[in-house]
Amino acid sequence: MSVTGLVLARGGSKGIKNKNLILLNKKPLLLRCLEIMHEAECFSSIWVSTDDDKIAECAERGGANVHRRAEYTATDRASSLCAVLEFIQHHPEICVVCIVQCTSPFLQAKYLRTAVDKIQGGYDSVFSVTRRHLFRWSDGEPTYPQNLDPKQRPCRQEWTGDLYENGMFYISRVNLIFEGLLQGGSRCGYVEVPQEDSLDIDSPFDVIIAQEWIKYCQKEIT
Amino acid sequence: MSVTGLVLARGGSKGIKNKNLILLNKKPLLLRCLEIMHEAECFSSIWVSTDDDKIAECAERGGANVHRRAEYTATDRASSLCAVLEFIQHHPEICVVCIVQCTSPFLQAKYLRTAVDKIQGGYDSVFSVTRRHLFRWSDGEPTYPQNLDPKQRPCRQEWTGDLYENGMFYISRVNLIFEGLLQGGSRCGYVEVPQEDSLDIDSPFDVIIAQEWIKYCQKEIT
Repeated sequence: MSVTGLVLARGGSKGIKNKNLILLNKKPLLLRCLEIMHEAECFSSIWVSTDDDKIAECAERGGANVHRRAEYTATDRASSLCAVLEFIQHHPEICVVCIVQCTSPFLQAKYLRTAVDKIQGGYDSVFSVTRRHLFRWSDGEPTYPQNLDPKQRPCRQEWTGDLYENGMFYISRVNLIFEGLLQGGSRCGYVEVPQEDSLDIDSPFDVIIAQEWIKYCQKEIT
Repeated sequence: MSVTGLVLARGGSKGIKNKNLILLNKKPLLLRCLEIMHEAECFSSIWVSTDDDKIAECAERGGANVHRRAEYTATDRASSLCAVLEFIQHHPEICVVCIVQCTSPFLQAKYLRTAVDKIQGGYDSVFSVTRRHLFRWSDGEPTYPQNLDPKQRPCRQEWTGDLYENGMFYISRVNLIFEGLLQGGSRCGYVEVPQEDSLDIDSPFDVIIAQEWIKYCQKEIT
């Protein structure tokens, strides 16, 4: 079963301007992402869906096919689902799609491979999560504990934590997507990504953090 | 009703060595924390409970009283509750304690004042939380959504998010603490702290983030 890799990268992203082309270690985020997708060697083809000339140029430089998306899928209000649907309608040969978010610079090929292995092993959808140890309280006062007993607060070692979607990637069978779902089906799985690898670039400060994290890791290696 | 400020700062902290004395902008975290507590002008007295000479010295430099804590409260396994209980047993005059975590460098006096106002207005306990927009999934496969409908994923604007304890501070009436609780009572309240101010320093990478954030904020101002 072949899996198509897809990056949704429109030009007019909210928040930071041209987010998908931000340079990290002198390399645009999109190019970095495409390199990792090629390295994973688990996609039958790799596509970038965009409405922007500069992004299309970068996609080609990264060895990806370019899908010129319809304008209605590239507005601030359009969902990822809407953009994926438009893409697969143009590609009836596709049966499984892996959407990869190019603003996750610490994605690794091994996470993608694990996810693709699961889909090929029979899962309907697989996506990336991060395990966190966060105590949750009800909204509004008085507040009540949601996932702890304040009389017996667990140590980090005693508690496995909770799973949180991190947005790095979503793999889904096309029939599920046509039902309006990127996650679901009778076998819905996940790939755990450590917190330090799950950074999403969403603000100028995140870019700084990512740069410093790269420097720090390089120092640790040398 | 007077509120006592208390910083629990033992010498042998896990993770980073001498975490409480890490320098940020050339100032130890503990000193930074004590300055904010003084600035808040809402504590009748400010204490540092420690087993370490250097921390005691720094506490005095920061205008705090030093409580020499018993050894059994300063082990890796001892809880904050245990350390607070030992402290209040030595200070029978205290009726409300505010524990402040000195590894939260972006604490602000206004957050402490809001919390103390709530306690003085009748709450039994008040602590700091951060609102986050995180999608939670059940542990184990197949996984199921816990706080979203995958068919109708809410936009950030449409969803108020969830409240997560951030560990920056806990105010509690002494009678509650003697019951074994830092959070609870019939009126349990919270103070919301924005995510960028709720960083907790727990790893060398957090120190880097904190330093960069300070630089970034200074640039934004000038």
